[in-house]
Amino acid sequence: MKKLINDPVDFVPESVEGFVAAHGDLVAFHADPLYIVRADAPVSGKVGIVSGGGSGHEPLHGGYVGIGMLDAAVPGAVFTSPTPDPILAATKVVDGGAGVLHIVKNYTGDVLNFETAADLAAADGIEVRAVVTNDDVAVKDSLYTAGRRGVGGTVLVEKIAGAKAEAGGSLDEVAGIAEKVNDNVRSMGLALTPCINPNDGQPSFTLAEDEVEVGIGIHGEPGRERIKIESADSLVDRLIGPIIEDLPFVSGDRVLLFVNGMGGTPLSELYVVYRHAAKVLADHGIAVERSLVGNFITAIDMQGASITVLKLDDELTALWDAPVQTPALRWGR
Amino acid sequence: MKKLINDPVDFVPESVEGFVAAHGDLVAFHADPLYIVRADAPVSGKVGIVSGGGSGHEPLHGGYVGIGMLDAAVPGAVFTSPTPDPILAATKVVDGGAGVLHIVKNYTGDVLNFETAADLAAADGIEVRAVVTNDDVAVKDSLYTAGRRGVGGTVLVEKIAGAKAEAGGSLDEVAGIAEKVNDNVRSMGLALTPCINPNDGQPSFTLAEDEVEVGIGIHGEPGRERIKIESADSLVDRLIGPIIEDLPFVSGDRVLLFVNGMGGTPLSELYVVYRHAAKVLADHGIAVERSLVGNFITAIDMQGASITVLKLDDELTALWDAPVQTPALRWGR
Repeated sequence: MKKLINDPVDFVPESVEGFVAAHGDLVAFHADPLYIVRADAPVSGKVGIVSGGGSGHEPLHGGYVGIGMLDAAVPGAVFTSPTPDPILAATKVVDGGAGVLHIVKNYTGDVLNFETAADLAAADGIEVRAVVTNDDVAVKDSLYTAGRRGVGGTVLVEKIAGAKAEAGGSLDEVAGIAEKVNDNVRSMGLALTPCINPNDGQPSFTLAEDEVEVGIGIHGEPGRERIKIESADSLVDRLIGPIIEDLPFVSGDRVLLFVNGMGGTPLSELYVVYRHAAKVLADHGIAVERSLVGNFITAIDMQGASITVLKLDDELTALWDAPVQTPALRWGR
Repeated sequence: MKKLINDPVDFVPESVEGFVAAHGDLVAFHADPLYIVRADAPVSGKVGIVSGGGSGHEPLHGGYVGIGMLDAAVPGAVFTSPTPDPILAATKVVDGGAGVLHIVKNYTGDVLNFETAADLAAADGIEVRAVVTNDDVAVKDSLYTAGRRGVGGTVLVEKIAGAKAEAGGSLDEVAGIAEKVNDNVRSMGLALTPCINPNDGQPSFTLAEDEVEVGIGIHGEPGRERIKIESADSLVDRLIGPIIEDLPFVSGDRVLLFVNGMGGTPLSELYVVYRHAAKVLADHGIAVERSLVGNFITAIDMQGASITVLKLDDELTALWDAPVQTPALRWGR
């Protein structure tokens, strides 16, 4: 295994330590139990937003802690849910008196541990709501999930709910907008290579030199089908088709198109993917009004990409456009 | 070769087309000759800034076209200098009457072709100055370069010169600040893997399963030495040591620390690198006052990283902090 790591046991805490050292103007961290928190938490009177899950998907979730997005992120070990203890601690730290929203990707361990933490927080008098993201159209159930997996759409839920909270929305309103994003977003991804987990140095699965796994999750869990490599445009057709059919997206819709890299794919290839996905949407009469392209929810060093499409309305567009200052996503005005 | 591409011949133009489709609020492009230009170019009375070079280093340079950074970027074929023709065309398009600065990485082909374009632009009455970046401390001469290579420091030159131009600086002032950044910045990188060029599907060099190339350039050209894999901290010592010695950086200096990924390395590992680099600098009494971590100047899908350190003063810090809105680097206030 060739990776820029020291002892694999120290990988997550050392990475978090470096992350917070680099972005100390925006974020802080607590070492034991481990969580990342907005530097000015708690923000009095603001709904707090906490997300988290196994590490290995960076910049998700720590990279989205900051102004206008998350108040805290709880990283587990690589591809392993955090326990309820750090989730509870983070929930308490970000509670500014207006309640706390948990944004949870639909993986069985995450859902259970966030539920336990929410129950414990409620016993301490903190009002907690949870939104479980499940935007992956590829498979109904998978290796780690009952129901659809939460994948790329999670980034959009976090951005838009974060903007609503920053604007002073109530817990009901922030949870409501998060549900609205989740209801209107669909994703699907593919892998050209497995990823190498730093814990054991082993590939997450095997794939022949000319094979692609279509419909993959963010851990390398199996997808819909394994096929021979095709042109980028053909591969994009295999992703965008099921996405459009699922909601369904229809002519006249306005959308945000998000092309995400799985960690090891160059940005230049993601733009080749974007080009064709945007064309297919245009052919369906669907207007791409906002875009996001880059490595935002990854599977360590996997080569591959996912496509996410969110149906926009004026409310979602305004919240998407709102200023955000986090280590991984930022813009002002 | 497994890549998200169509016909390799179309790779660069299709990627540029997707890039501009995704970021049409900031950038536009011209297809033949191929260049990327700020959407509102030319900006009357502002010094125009043009950079460029072979493709394969994305987001450099196209990703830095926008408000507060570059006015145009000229992408050649992968790892191949653009010819003078598109450089000249881009120079003419961004000329707002205050002259044009060329920012050129020190690679022989780039230097020659930008010089030719500058001569042709001068013949058309456009005042052009050039700054050649050469921040790589690893080797004196290399496969494609006489003198030191221009690597990670180029990103910082583009940001800071861009801020000076946006603030209304004259051509002398903008060129002067670009030279000042280049004089005060040093870099060094390493590769864990070669990159695969989409033109031929071949690795740029061979490296055994347990080997690392230290002092690599951004095309996979040879570095200082080939060693067995070590811990991240030991590898960082091999990069940061020569950087500190070279300027030299001394106790009491204030610096910007930039940890760059070569395209295929996960962000989480870059933060492990950042953590130790910041510690070594602190041990030398050098204060890290600004940071940048991510994939900003890459070698296609190479796994590896580079470290860049820029000595700051109040002037450089203020220009670094100035708002910037480009596809790949953005923050406001």
